[in-house]
Amino acid sequence: MLIPAPIQRLIEAFSRLPGVGPKTASRLTFYMLRGENDLAQELSAALAELRAGTAVCTQCFNITAAGQERCPICASSEREAGVICVVEEPLDVIALERTGGYRGLYHVLGGALSPIEGIGPEDLRIAELVERMRGGATEELIIATNPSVEGDATAMYLQQQIAPLGARITRLARGLPMGGDLEYADQNTLLRALAGRQSME
Amino acid sequence: MLIPAPIQRLIEAFSRLPGVGPKTASRLTFYMLRGENDLAQELSAALAELRAGTAVCTQCFNITAAGQERCPICASSEREAGVICVVEEPLDVIALERTGGYRGLYHVLGGALSPIEGIGPEDLRIAELVERMRGGATEELIIATNPSVEGDATAMYLQQQIAPLGARITRLARGLPMGGDLEYADQNTLLRALAGRQSME
Repeated sequence: MLIPAPIQRLIEAFSRLPGVGPKTASRLTFYMLRGENDLAQELSAALAELRAGTAVCTQCFNITAAGQERCPICASSEREAGVICVVEEPLDVIALERTGGYRGLYHVLGGALSPIEGIGPEDLRIAELVERMRGGATEELIIATNPSVEGDATAMYLQQQIAPLGARITRLARGLPMGGDLEYADQNTLLRALAGRQSME
Repeated sequence: MLIPAPIQRLIEAFSRLPGVGPKTASRLTFYMLRGENDLAQELSAALAELRAGTAVCTQCFNITAAGQERCPICASSEREAGVICVVEEPLDVIALERTGGYRGLYHVLGGALSPIEGIGPEDLRIAELVERMRGGATEELIIATNPSVEGDATAMYLQQQIAPLGARITRLARGLPMGGDLEYADQNTLLRALAGRQSME
Protein backbone atom coordinates (compact mmCIF):
# COMPACT_ATOMS: atom_id res chain seq x y z
CA MET A 1 0.00 0.00 0.00
CA LEU A 2 1.36 3.36 -1.02
CA ILE A 3 -0.65 5.70 1.18
CA PRO A 4 1.14 8.92 2.24
CA ALA A 5 1.97 8.99 5.95
CA PRO A 6 -0.30 11.97 6.85
CA ILE A 7 -3.26 10.19 5.22
CA GLN A 8 -2.47 6.90 6.93
CA ARG A 9 -2.12 8.67 10.27
CA LEU A 10 -5.55 10.31 9.98
CA ILE A 11 -7.19 7.06 8.82
CA GLU A 12 -5.77 5.32 11.90
CA ALA A 13 -6.95 8.10 14.22
CA PHE A 14 -10.48 8.00 12.77
CA SER A 15 -10.46 4.17 13.07
CA ARG A 16 -10.12 4.51 16.84
CA LEU A 17 -13.52 6.24 17.09
CA PRO A 18 -16.36 3.98 18.25
CA GLY A 19 -18.39 2.58 15.34
CA VAL A 20 -15.85 3.67 12.71
CA GLY A 21 -14.21 0.87 10.71
CA PRO A 22 -11.25 1.13 8.30
CA LYS A 23 -13.43 1.90 5.25
CA THR A 24 -15.41 4.62 7.00
CA ALA A 25 -12.14 6.05 8.31
CA SER A 26 -10.79 6.20 4.74
CA ARG A 27 -13.95 7.89 3.50
CA LEU A 28 -13.80 10.49 6.27
CA THR A 29 -10.14 11.17 5.58
CA PHE A 30 -10.61 11.74 1.85
CA TYR A 31 -13.74 13.76 2.55
CA MET A 32 -11.47 16.04 4.59
CA LEU A 33 -9.14 16.42 1.61
CA ARG A 34 -11.78 17.39 -0.91
CA GLY A 35 -14.40 18.81 1.48
CA GLU A 36 -14.92 22.35 2.61
CA ASN A 37 -11.55 23.87 3.29
CA ASP A 38 -12.08 24.77 6.90
CA LEU A 39 -13.63 21.54 8.22
CA ALA A 40 -10.34 19.76 8.96
CA GLN A 41 -8.98 22.88 10.68
CA GLU A 42 -12.18 23.48 12.62
CA LEU A 43 -12.39 19.88 13.80
CA SER A 44 -8.70 19.93 14.68
CA ALA A 45 -9.05 23.12 16.72
CA ALA A 46 -12.22 21.93 18.49
CA LEU A 47 -10.49 18.69 19.48
CA ALA A 48 -7.37 20.47 20.68
CA GLU A 49 -9.46 22.84 22.77
CA LEU A 50 -11.66 20.14 24.26
CA ARG A 51 -9.65 19.18 27.33
CA ALA A 52 -8.35 22.65 28.14
CA GLY A 53 -11.79 24.16 27.67
CA THR A 54 -13.72 21.80 29.91
CA ALA A 55 -13.76 20.89 33.58
CA VAL A 56 -15.85 18.75 35.91
CA CYS A 57 -18.43 20.40 38.17
CA THR A 58 -17.32 19.94 41.77
CA GLN A 59 -20.89 19.37 42.96
CA CYS A 60 -22.62 17.20 40.35
CA PHE A 61 -19.58 15.97 38.31
CA ASN A 62 -21.17 16.97 35.02
CA ILE A 63 -18.91 18.42 32.31
CA THR A 64 -18.73 22.20 32.43
CA ALA A 65 -16.66 25.01 30.94
CA ALA A 66 -13.12 25.41 32.29
CA GLY A 67 -12.75 27.92 35.11
CA GLN A 68 -16.21 27.27 36.52
CA GLU A 69 -16.23 25.50 39.86
CA ARG A 70 -19.90 24.65 39.46
CA CYS A 71 -21.79 23.89 36.25
CA PRO A 72 -24.54 26.31 35.09
CA ILE A 73 -27.25 23.96 36.40
CA CYS A 74 -25.77 23.72 39.92
CA ALA A 75 -25.07 27.47 39.92
CA SER A 76 -28.57 28.43 38.77
CA SER A 77 -30.97 29.89 41.35
CA GLU A 78 -33.93 28.84 39.20
CA ARG A 79 -33.44 25.11 39.65
CA GLU A 80 -35.10 23.16 42.47
CA ALA A 81 -32.18 22.50 44.82
CA GLY A 82 -34.20 19.92 46.78
CA VAL A 83 -34.36 17.42 43.91
CA ILE A 84 -31.37 15.50 42.58
CA CYS A 85 -31.47 13.25 39.52
CA VAL A 86 -28.75 10.59 39.43
CA VAL A 87 -27.48 9.63 35.98
CA GLU A 88 -24.62 7.52 34.68
CA GLU A 89 -23.06 9.87 32.11
CA PRO A 90 -23.02 13.56 31.07
CA LEU A 91 -24.86 12.60 27.86
CA ASP A 92 -27.80 11.52 30.02
CA VAL A 93 -28.00 15.04 31.46
CA ILE A 94 -28.24 16.44 27.95
CA ALA A 95 -31.02 13.96 27.08
CA LEU A 96 -33.02 14.92 30.18
CA GLU A 97 -32.45 18.66 29.70
CA ARG A 98 -33.70 18.31 26.13
CA THR A 99 -37.13 17.19 27.42
CA GLY A 100 -37.60 20.50 29.24
CA GLY A 101 -39.51 18.53 31.88
CA TYR A 102 -37.04 18.57 34.75
CA ARG A 103 -36.14 21.54 36.96
CA GLY A 104 -33.98 19.95 39.66
CA LEU A 105 -30.24 19.25 39.91
CA TYR A 106 -28.16 16.30 38.73
CA HIS A 107 -25.52 13.93 39.99
CA VAL A 108 -23.33 12.19 37.41
CA LEU A 109 -22.04 8.83 38.67
CA GLY A 110 -19.52 8.32 35.87
CA GLY A 111 -20.86 4.88 34.94
CA ALA A 112 -22.76 1.97 36.48
CA LEU A 113 -21.82 -0.94 38.73
CA SER A 114 -20.46 -3.81 36.64
CA PRO A 115 -18.67 -6.74 38.31
CA ILE A 116 -17.76 -8.08 34.84
CA GLU A 117 -15.91 -4.91 33.93
CA GLY A 118 -14.55 -4.56 37.46
CA ILE A 119 -16.47 -1.37 38.21
CA GLY A 120 -17.37 -1.24 41.90
CA PRO A 121 -19.03 1.43 44.08
CA GLU A 122 -15.66 3.07 44.77
CA ASP A 123 -15.21 3.74 41.01
CA LEU A 124 -18.42 5.80 40.88
CA ARG A 125 -19.33 9.11 42.55
CA ILE A 126 -21.55 7.36 45.09
CA ALA A 127 -19.70 8.44 48.24
CA GLU A 128 -19.82 12.00 46.93
CA LEU A 129 -23.59 11.71 46.49
CA VAL A 130 -24.08 10.42 50.05
CA GLU A 131 -21.89 13.23 51.34
CA ARG A 132 -23.81 15.78 49.26
CA MET A 133 -27.16 14.59 50.68
CA ARG A 134 -26.00 14.32 54.31
CA GLY A 135 -27.01 17.92 55.01
CA GLY A 136 -30.66 16.85 54.69
CA ALA A 137 -31.66 19.54 52.17
CA THR A 138 -32.57 16.96 49.51
CA GLU A 139 -36.28 16.09 49.44
CA GLU A 140 -36.20 13.69 46.53
CA LEU A 141 -33.58 11.61 44.77
CA ILE A 142 -34.59 10.50 41.27
CA ILE A 143 -32.58 7.53 40.10
CA ALA A 144 -32.21 7.70 36.32
CA THR A 145 -29.61 5.02 35.63
CA ASN A 146 -29.98 3.12 32.35
CA PRO A 147 -32.74 0.45 32.15
CA SER A 148 -30.11 -2.30 31.90
CA VAL A 149 -28.79 -4.99 34.25
CA GLU A 150 -25.97 -2.68 35.39
CA GLY A 151 -28.30 0.29 35.75
CA ASP A 152 -30.73 -1.79 37.83
CA ALA A 153 -27.94 -3.06 40.08
CA THR A 154 -26.67 0.49 40.53
CA ALA A 155 -30.18 1.71 41.41
CA MET A 156 -30.59 -1.02 44.03
CA TYR A 157 -27.22 -0.23 45.57
CA LEU A 158 -27.96 3.50 45.63
CA GLN A 159 -31.33 2.88 47.25
CA GLN A 160 -29.63 0.95 50.08
CA GLN A 161 -27.03 3.65 50.61
CA ILE A 162 -29.43 6.61 50.45
CA ALA A 163 -32.42 5.17 52.35
CA PRO A 164 -31.02 6.02 55.83
CA LEU A 165 -30.76 9.71 54.85
CA GLY A 166 -34.53 10.17 54.80
CA ALA A 167 -35.04 11.58 51.32
CA ARG A 168 -37.77 10.24 49.09
CA ILE A 169 -36.21 7.91 46.50
CA THR A 170 -37.86 7.46 43.11
CA ARG A 171 -36.94 5.87 39.84
CA LEU A 172 -37.84 6.78 36.26
CA ALA A 173 -40.99 4.93 35.15
CA ARG A 174 -40.60 1.77 33.13
CA GLY A 175 -41.63 3.48 29.95
CA LEU A 176 -38.00 3.11 28.96
CA PRO A 177 -37.20 0.13 26.73
CA MET A 178 -35.14 -2.50 28.57
CA GLY A 179 -31.55 -3.09 27.50
CA GLY A 180 -31.38 0.29 25.78
CA ASP A 181 -29.29 3.35 26.44
CA LEU A 182 -30.96 6.32 28.13
CA GLU A 183 -29.42 8.84 25.76
CA TYR A 184 -31.11 7.17 22.77
CA ALA A 185 -34.64 7.44 24.16
CA ASP A 186 -36.90 9.90 22.36
CA GLN A 187 -38.16 12.95 24.23
CA ASN A 188 -41.73 11.74 24.73
CA THR A 189 -40.56 8.46 26.21
CA LEU A 190 -38.31 10.39 28.59
CA LEU A 191 -41.10 12.83 29.52
CA ARG A 192 -43.48 9.95 30.36
CA ALA A 193 -40.77 8.20 32.32
CA LEU A 194 -40.19 11.38 34.33
CA ALA A 195 -43.91 11.90 34.95
CA GLY A 196 -44.54 8.25 35.92
CA ARG A 197 -41.61 7.84 38.34
CA GLN A 198 -42.46 5.50 41.24
CA SER A 199 -41.50 5.27 44.89
CA MET A 200 -38.73 2.77 45.55
CA GLU A 201 -39.87 1.47 48.97
CA MET B 1 -29.51 23.53 26.67
CA LEU B 2 -26.57 24.14 28.95
CA ILE B 3 -23.75 22.55 26.99
CA PRO B 4 -20.30 24.15 27.49
CA ALA B 5 -19.06 25.97 24.37
CA PRO B 6 -16.05 23.71 23.68
CA ILE B 7 -18.34 20.66 23.77
CA GLN B 8 -20.92 22.30 21.53
CA ARG B 9 -18.23 23.34 19.09
CA LEU B 10 -16.87 19.81 18.76
CA ILE B 11 -20.37 18.33 18.40
CA GLU B 12 -21.04 20.75 15.55
CA ALA B 13 -17.73 19.95 13.85
CA PHE B 14 -18.41 16.20 14.06
CA SER B 15 -21.94 16.77 12.71
CA ARG B 16 -20.46 18.12 9.49
CA LEU B 17 -18.87 14.75 8.69
CA PRO B 18 -20.75 12.65 6.13
CA GLY B 19 -23.03 10.09 7.76
CA VAL B 20 -22.72 11.62 11.25
CA GLY B 21 -25.95 12.98 12.78
CA PRO B 22 -26.31 15.10 15.95
CA LYS B 23 -26.62 12.07 18.28
CA THR B 24 -23.58 10.31 16.84
CA ALA B 25 -21.69 13.61 17.05
CA SER B 26 -22.59 13.87 20.76
CA ARG B 27 -21.48 10.30 21.40
CA LEU B 28 -18.16 10.87 19.64
CA THR B 29 -17.58 14.08 21.60
CA PHE B 30 -18.20 12.51 25.00
CA TYR B 31 -16.18 9.48 23.96
CA MET B 32 -13.31 11.92 23.45
CA LEU B 33 -13.77 13.23 26.98
CA ARG B 34 -13.72 9.90 28.75
CA GLY B 35 -11.73 7.89 26.18
CA GLU B 36 -8.05 7.26 25.97
CA ASN B 37 -6.24 10.47 26.84
CA ASP B 38 -4.31 10.87 23.62
CA LEU B 39 -7.04 10.20 21.05
CA ALA B 40 -8.37 13.76 20.88
CA GLN B 41 -4.83 15.14 20.62
CA GLU B 42 -3.77 12.56 18.03
CA LEU B 43 -6.84 13.15 15.88
CA SER B 44 -6.40 16.91 16.22
CA ALA B 45 -2.75 16.74 15.17
CA ALA B 46 -3.44 14.39 12.25
CA LEU B 47 -6.16 16.72 10.97
CA ALA B 48 -3.97 19.80 11.34
CA GLU B 49 -1.15 18.10 9.47
CA LEU B 50 -3.34 16.77 6.67
CA ARG B 51 -3.23 19.69 4.24
CA ALA B 52 0.37 20.69 4.88
CA GLY B 53 1.53 17.09 4.68
CA THR B 54 -0.09 16.18 1.39
CA ALA B 55 0.20 17.26 -2.22
CA VAL B 56 -1.19 16.19 -5.58
CA CYS B 57 0.96 14.13 -7.96
CA THR B 58 1.69 16.26 -11.03
CA GLN B 59 1.36 13.26 -13.35
CA CYS B 60 -1.58 11.16 -12.10
CA PHE B 61 -3.25 13.64 -9.68
CA ASN B 62 -3.38 11.09 -6.89
CA ILE B 63 -2.75 12.33 -3.34
CA THR B 64 0.89 12.05 -2.30
CA ALA B 65 3.18 13.24 0.47
CA ALA B 66 4.10 16.93 0.43
CA GLY B 67 7.37 17.73 -1.32
CA GLN B 68 7.05 14.91 -3.83
CA GLU B 69 6.41 16.03 -7.38
CA ARG B 70 5.32 12.54 -8.34
CA CYS B 71 3.57 9.95 -6.22
CA PRO B 72 5.38 6.70 -5.30
CA ILE B 73 3.45 4.79 -7.98
CA CYS B 74 4.37 7.19 -10.80
CA ALA B 75 7.95 7.38 -9.53
CA SER B 76 8.37 3.60 -9.27
CA SER B 77 10.45 1.84 -11.93
CA GLU B 78 8.68 -1.44 -11.17
CA ARG B 79 5.28 -0.36 -12.51
CA GLU B 80 4.24 -0.92 -16.12
CA ALA B 81 4.46 2.60 -17.56
CA GLY B 82 2.52 1.57 -20.68
CA VAL B 83 -0.73 0.92 -18.82
CA ILE B 84 -2.85 3.66 -17.25
CA CYS B 85 -5.93 3.00 -15.14
CA VAL B 86 -8.38 5.94 -14.98
CA VAL B 87 -10.32 6.29 -11.73
CA GLU B 88 -12.61 8.94 -10.27
CA GLU B 89 -11.11 9.42 -6.80
CA PRO B 90 -7.91 8.69 -4.82
CA LEU B 91 -9.89 6.18 -2.73
CA ASP B 92 -10.37 4.11 -5.88
CA VAL B 93 -6.58 3.86 -6.26
CA ILE B 94 -6.37 2.48 -2.73
CA ALA B 95 -9.09 -0.08 -3.49
CA LEU B 96 -7.30 -1.25 -6.64
CA GLU B 97 -3.88 -1.34 -4.96
CA ARG B 98 -5.36 -3.47 -2.21
CA THR B 99 -6.16 -6.22 -4.72
CA GLY B 100 -2.48 -6.61 -5.59
CA GLY B 101 -3.61 -7.44 -9.13
CA TYR B 102 -2.57 -4.29 -10.97
CA ARG B 103 0.97 -3.21 -11.85
CA GLY B 104 0.37 -0.21 -14.13
CA LEU B 105 -0.05 3.50 -13.42
CA TYR B 106 -3.15 5.56 -12.55
CA HIS B 107 -4.90 8.73 -13.57
CA VAL B 108 -7.27 10.33 -11.04
CA LEU B 109 -10.02 12.33 -12.74
CA GLY B 110 -11.27 14.03 -9.59
CA GLY B 111 -14.89 12.95 -10.11
CA ALA B 112 -17.25 11.95 -12.91
CA LEU B 113 -19.29 13.82 -15.49
CA SER B 114 -22.60 14.94 -13.99
CA PRO B 115 -24.82 17.48 -15.78
CA ILE B 116 -27.12 17.57 -12.75
CA GLU B 117 -24.30 18.67 -10.46
CA GLY B 118 -22.85 20.87 -13.16
CA ILE B 119 -19.66 18.85 -13.54
CA GLY B 120 -18.42 18.98 -17.14
CA PRO B 121 -15.27 17.67 -18.86
CA GLU B 122 -13.37 20.86 -17.98
CA ASP B 123 -13.87 20.15 -14.26
CA LEU B 124 -12.08 16.79 -14.52
CA ARG B 125 -8.45 15.97 -15.39
CA ILE B 126 -9.41 14.76 -18.88
CA ALA B 127 -7.34 17.26 -20.88
CA GLU B 128 -4.37 16.32 -18.71
CA LEU B 129 -4.95 12.64 -19.52
CA VAL B 130 -5.09 13.32 -23.27
CA GLU B 131 -1.91 15.40 -23.00
CA ARG B 132 -0.21 12.67 -20.97
CA MET B 133 -1.05 10.03 -23.60
CA ARG B 134 -0.14 12.16 -26.60
CA GLY B 135 3.46 10.93 -26.55
CA GLY B 136 2.20 7.52 -27.66
CA ALA B 137 3.93 5.50 -24.91
CA THR B 138 0.62 4.24 -23.52
CA GLU B 139 -0.37 0.81 -24.81
CA GLU B 140 -3.56 0.38 -22.81
CA LEU B 141 -5.97 2.65 -21.01
CA ILE B 142 -8.15 0.86 -18.44
CA ILE B 143 -11.25 2.88 -17.61
CA ALA B 144 -12.24 2.15 -14.01
CA THR B 145 -14.89 4.77 -13.36
CA ASN B 146 -17.72 3.78 -11.03
CA PRO B 147 -20.44 1.45 -12.45
CA SER B 148 -23.02 4.24 -12.19
CA VAL B 149 -24.80 6.49 -14.67
CA GLU B 150 -22.16 9.20 -14.20
CA GLY B 151 -19.32 6.69 -14.41
CA ASP B 152 -20.74 5.22 -17.62
CA ALA B 153 -21.14 8.65 -19.19
CA THR B 154 -17.57 9.52 -18.22
CA ALA B 155 -16.29 6.27 -19.73
CA MET B 156 -18.10 6.95 -23.00
CA TYR B 157 -16.74 10.49 -23.16
CA LEU B 158 -13.20 9.31 -22.39
CA GLN B 159 -13.41 6.63 -25.07
CA GLN B 160 -14.31 9.27 -27.67
CA GLN B 161 -11.47 11.54 -26.59
CA ILE B 162 -8.82 8.83 -26.35
CA ALA B 163 -9.69 6.68 -29.39
CA PRO B 164 -7.75 8.91 -31.89
CA LEU B 165 -4.56 8.38 -29.86
CA GLY B 166 -4.28 4.72 -30.84
CA ALA B 167 -4.02 3.09 -27.42
CA ARG B 168 -6.11 0.03 -26.59
CA ILE B 169 -9.05 1.12 -24.43
CA THR B 170 -10.60 -1.32 -21.96
CA ARG B 171 -13.10 -1.14 -19.19
CA LEU B 172 -13.38 -3.12 -15.93
CA ALA B 173 -15.60 -6.17 -16.39
CA ARG B 174 -19.21 -5.91 -15.32
CA GLY B 175 -18.61 -8.01 -12.26
CA LEU B 176 -19.13 -4.78 -10.33
CA PRO B 177 -22.60 -4.28 -8.88
CA MET B 178 -24.49 -1.52 -10.74
CA GLY B 179 -25.19 1.71 -8.90
CA GLY B 180 -22.52 0.98 -6.31
CA ASP B 181 -19.34 2.76 -5.39
CA LEU B 182 -16.06 1.29 -6.58
CA GLU B 183 -14.33 1.76 -3.24
CA TYR B 184 -16.91 -0.46 -1.50
CA ALA B 185 -16.37 -3.45 -3.78
CA ASP B 186 -14.66 -6.43 -2.14
CA GLN B 187 -11.24 -7.52 -3.32
CA ASN B 188 -12.41 -10.60 -5.21
CA THR B 189 -15.00 -8.66 -7.17
CA LEU B 190 -12.35 -6.12 -8.07
CA LEU B 191 -9.86 -8.84 -9.07
CA ARG B 192 -12.44 -10.48 -11.37
CA ALA B 193 -13.39 -7.13 -12.82
CA LEU B 194 -9.71 -6.44 -13.59
CA ALA B 195 -9.17 -9.90 -15.14
CA GLY B 196 -12.35 -9.72 -17.25
CA ARG B 197 -11.88 -6.22 -18.65
CA GLN B 198 -13.22 -5.93 -22.21
CA SER B 199 -12.31 -3.94 -25.30
CA MET B 200 -14.37 -0.81 -25.78
CA GLU B 201 -14.63 -0.82 -29.62
